[in-house]
Amino acid sequence: MVKLFGYFRSSAAYRVRIALNLKNIEWQSETIHLTKNGGEQFSEAYQKLNPQSLLPTLEDDGNYFTQSLAILEYIEEAYPDPPLLPTLPTQRARVRSIALAVACDIHPINNLRVLKYLSQELKLDQVQKTTWYRHWISTGLGAIETMLTQHSETGEFCHGSSVSLADICLVPQVFNANRFDCDMSAYPTITRINDACLSMKEFQQAMPENQPDAEE
Amino acid sequence: MVKLFGYFRSSAAYRVRIALNLKNIEWQSETIHLTKNGGEQFSEAYQKLNPQSLLPTLEDDGNYFTQSLAILEYIEEAYPDPPLLPTLPTQRARVRSIALAVACDIHPINNLRVLKYLSQELKLDQVQKTTWYRHWISTGLGAIETMLTQHSETGEFCHGSSVSLADICLVPQVFNANRFDCDMSAYPTITRINDACLSMKEFQQAMPENQPDAEE
Repeated sequence: MVKLFGYFRSSAAYRVRIALNLKNIEWQSETIHLTKNGGEQFSEAYQKLNPQSLLPTLEDDGNYFTQSLAILEYIEEAYPDPPLLPTLPTQRARVRSIALAVACDIHPINNLRVLKYLSQELKLDQVQKTTWYRHWISTGLGAIETMLTQHSETGEFCHGSSVSLADICLVPQVFNANRFDCDMSAYPTITRINDACLSMKEFQQAMPENQPDAEE
Repeated sequence: MVKLFGYFRSSAAYRVRIALNLKNIEWQSETIHLTKNGGEQFSEAYQKLNPQSLLPTLEDDGNYFTQSLAILEYIEEAYPDPPLLPTLPTQRARVRSIALAVACDIHPINNLRVLKYLSQELKLDQVQKTTWYRHWISTGLGAIETMLTQHSETGEFCHGSSVSLADICLVPQVFNANRFDCDMSAYPTITRINDACLSMKEFQQAMPENQPDAEE
């Protein structure tokens, strides 16, 4: 049985939940609470699985995998049906570039550990932290909106008419943007694609509020 | 002819230079100067190729690719020989997880645009900025050192006895660490692998100081 070490609000874990659901893989969830007990991701047991103390970690057949994008590529290779990447290298590169524009250039800069550094080390207040958060959201989503609108292969989803790794990364990032009350009006294409994804049960079941460890 | 829009000091461009050299692909370089003229990455012409205004962009056969990791995967798929990823999905995941630990969790947090935000918006001084930089280097390289030492498949290189995407991401990050005088003594495995890579001409030729646009 596949096991996902995650947390309802972790957007990197959210990506993997979507992929597992789309691939129709049966999986069980193990919560690593990011704030309880000083952060369970720092426990000795979890650090053995994930030396970065980051979420998520995937267990499959006795193997442990870290880094959500590496996990998504693993799932794609080990469970090829339905595909989450197109066939042509040029198109695969396009899908990955959108996924990575989220996974490299928005998410890590706004991650919990960075926000902690901003308050604990740099003594930033809540307003400054929110300004930081929204700055990287708007820089990142603004660029992705352009990547989507300028390209003829954008369709119902980021790439054509089927879900890909790009959508799987985009939807959790939009969730985070909404959580921090970011203005989404400048991103109509992203909003349309996000809505299309969230109409699917595989995305709905992966949503933070629908996880067993969800909190208010 | 393959063209790489890069900058000698861009570590994401450095990754792609290494891969192009290892694949023995003939390529030409076009400099996008990151500081001259307010940053050439913000020019209208470049933004058309790369809406994120980030480096690098690869042109191949009339197609333009962004995001260095997506470019590396494209190069691997379009030019399979010699391979830069192992064959087994479990091993490919491991290599990608190391590459992504650099590309997601160290590099973007220390990138030029973030450092600019720290000085321009948050008015941090040079000491605070260097502390920030070194903090994310030591957090990131510390975890990667553990990922390497705890795994039996670590060899002469990050994964076994041939170069992979992991090494291609690691070496430019070590270059950045040295540039900011980070203490590398806690990372003997990383240092050993970095040295092994830099003994190869494909890495040497990709080094920042060996680029036509290199500056003091």
